[in-house]
Amino acid sequence: MDFGKKALASHKRLRGKIGVSLKDSLDSQESLSIYYTPGVAAVSKYTARYPDKARDYTWLNNSVAVVSDGSAVLGLGDIGPYGALPVMEGKAMLFKHFAGIDAVPIVLDVHQPDEIIEAVKAIAPSFGGINLEDIAAPQCFEIEEKLKKSLPIPVFHDDQHGTAVVVLAGLINAMKVSGRKLSDAKIVVAGAGAAGTAIIKLLHLYAKPRIFAVDSRGIISANRDDLNNEKKKLLEFTNLSGVDGSLEYILAEGADVFIGVSKAGLLTQDMVKSMDKDPIIFAMANPDPEILPDEAKAAGAAIVATGRSDFPNQVNNALAFPGIFRGALDNKVRSITDQHKIAAAQAIASLVKKPASDKIIPSVLDKRLVPAIARVIR
Amino acid sequence: MDFGKKALASHKRLRGKIGVSLKDSLDSQESLSIYYTPGVAAVSKYTARYPDKARDYTWLNNSVAVVSDGSAVLGLGDIGPYGALPVMEGKAMLFKHFAGIDAVPIVLDVHQPDEIIEAVKAIAPSFGGINLEDIAAPQCFEIEEKLKKSLPIPVFHDDQHGTAVVVLAGLINAMKVSGRKLSDAKIVVAGAGAAGTAIIKLLHLYAKPRIFAVDSRGIISANRDDLNNEKKKLLEFTNLSGVDGSLEYILAEGADVFIGVSKAGLLTQDMVKSMDKDPIIFAMANPDPEILPDEAKAAGAAIVATGRSDFPNQVNNALAFPGIFRGALDNKVRSITDQHKIAAAQAIASLVKKPASDKIIPSVLDKRLVPAIARVIR
Repeated sequence: MDFGKKALASHKRLRGKIGVSLKDSLDSQESLSIYYTPGVAAVSKYTARYPDKARDYTWLNNSVAVVSDGSAVLGLGDIGPYGALPVMEGKAMLFKHFAGIDAVPIVLDVHQPDEIIEAVKAIAPSFGGINLEDIAAPQCFEIEEKLKKSLPIPVFHDDQHGTAVVVLAGLINAMKVSGRKLSDAKIVVAGAGAAGTAIIKLLHLYAKPRIFAVDSRGIISANRDDLNNEKKKLLEFTNLSGVDGSLEYILAEGADVFIGVSKAGLLTQDMVKSMDKDPIIFAMANPDPEILPDEAKAAGAAIVATGRSDFPNQVNNALAFPGIFRGALDNKVRSITDQHKIAAAQAIASLVKKPASDKIIPSVLDKRLVPAIARVIR
Repeated sequence: MDFGKKALASHKRLRGKIGVSLKDSLDSQESLSIYYTPGVAAVSKYTARYPDKARDYTWLNNSVAVVSDGSAVLGLGDIGPYGALPVMEGKAMLFKHFAGIDAVPIVLDVHQPDEIIEAVKAIAPSFGGINLEDIAAPQCFEIEEKLKKSLPIPVFHDDQHGTAVVVLAGLINAMKVSGRKLSDAKIVVAGAGAAGTAIIKLLHLYAKPRIFAVDSRGIISANRDDLNNEKKKLLEFTNLSGVDGSLEYILAEGADVFIGVSKAGLLTQDMVKSMDKDPIIFAMANPDPEILPDEAKAAGAAIVATGRSDFPNQVNNALAFPGIFRGALDNKVRSITDQHKIAAAQAIASLVKKPASDKIIPSVLDKRLVPAIARVIR
């Protein structure tokens, strides 16, 4: 099916996918006097005096801003705020549908980290949480870190941590299926942007496997002089043996796992054949993966996951972020920590009672997901 | 009835008065693929390439940000963003209920005009219009003016222009009832902040009556050395005879009309008695007016209006802003002009077929209001 064509038609028909709804009717003078003037003055006096209580009297207990500057939207790149808006509205739909959260798309007309930080800080009292989305690396790291430090509400860059949580969940079950131990695995991560960096950090924290990060110029190593600070930091967790070379080279050196957050077609069948026996392939480039599942399997892959809904093993952020924010809002969690992410990954993995090569991860539509994750975000 | 007590209880029960709703269901893989990935990519490519068309594919055609820094909320003063939030959520309810507009409360943690301007500019691509609300004078003037200049969407400071439109509408009919002509009237405006300034400018533009502006220190006159720039500018439209003195003094000099946007109890019965015969009193201080209607009538007032719903002649912004934004969004109006405001006032006034002393303005609940106003905002 041509989803693009269908999407254009549906979006044009609806003219926006979300709207605002009222929790009570306003059709009498009395209700106007309670929800607006003069009655609301009593509420305003109270929330001004006790800002911490504002969430009990306003939508702060259930609202999230989905914030993007449009600098790294899907696989489309820097397409700006108007390009980003349809995606952020879609994300707001997912928030509501999966977790009952009232999310508002906020697309920004500023692009420097400091400007983005200032804009989000300025509007932060309007929301109970901030979901950063589709902001380019390496700026996204600084933006998230500074906002986390300065805001009293959860700030979560989904492209980083949502992806990392779901990859870890999938790998936990993939290891069971293939009889490997994550701590012994040799993992090659292709793509060292927002998602790749967060995946590497979380895998290291969870099991300290041998990890090699590869970007468009090859293995990230201390011998390279073209690394930005974020990539340099990856050397703490990756390539401890200090090798140089290409993706092709490192895969052939006994890699068990390939994790792709890079681009369509990057992984060839020959590369898969060169890996350790029965390798695990997470090919998550969007919308077209690094290798198609059938091709990977034909080349000997034991387990294949993608980001897509039309293949088995959909490793998709939508498995994680609704439950993570549901838990953070309900349990008044001010900061989503590494421990939260690991607990969320374990909660997701545990929903698959009998992992199998075509079933390492629950479906995005699994109703148990949100409560299972929300329970551990506290 | 104690609306404050009822409001606290209702707000605590609802925990927020508004939410986000979806325009279509998301409960299949197909709908996920159309409204989110991969389908949404086609929409994003299109809106990135043709930003002017984004409104046809997103909620931009129907969304408004209700923006406040909480510096002048209701009659409560500078109570900050958490104090402002219940009011802005209430305003969002009014937008939806009266005009079907999806409005989002945005309360700001910044207070300097430049910071507010930058924050609103940064988030502006997320919305089809900006309703500024409860921002203190004189900062509000600069903020609105600069935003109007730099943004391609309607920016409307409701405390100024919404109030001015409704006052003009009420005065048009009050003049008919009392057999006066607005151009001959002698009008005293008590309160020279956001609302007072906008009222004066609009009345001048419409009919050039004699106007005297009075603030807490007396009549605004060229002899005063304590005037800020905005108050100095009022001397172009007011006090052309150059008098000095108190509110009491100028009312007794044959004033026909008192317009109060000041504070409770400012106007005494003796002052009303000192005015021209059968004076017109708009006592709009919130929640308690400058004089209660019964007292004003006992002192000889022919027509009394307040901002309250529990007296006749409710001169309230809610009569104007829903229709003004409805028209601006539907007719793709990028800037709401003085001519729009006058047309809106005339549209409101015209809905009262037979004006009478207790019926100079339609009810806020009159269903004809929004379409009648929207029609002239084009």
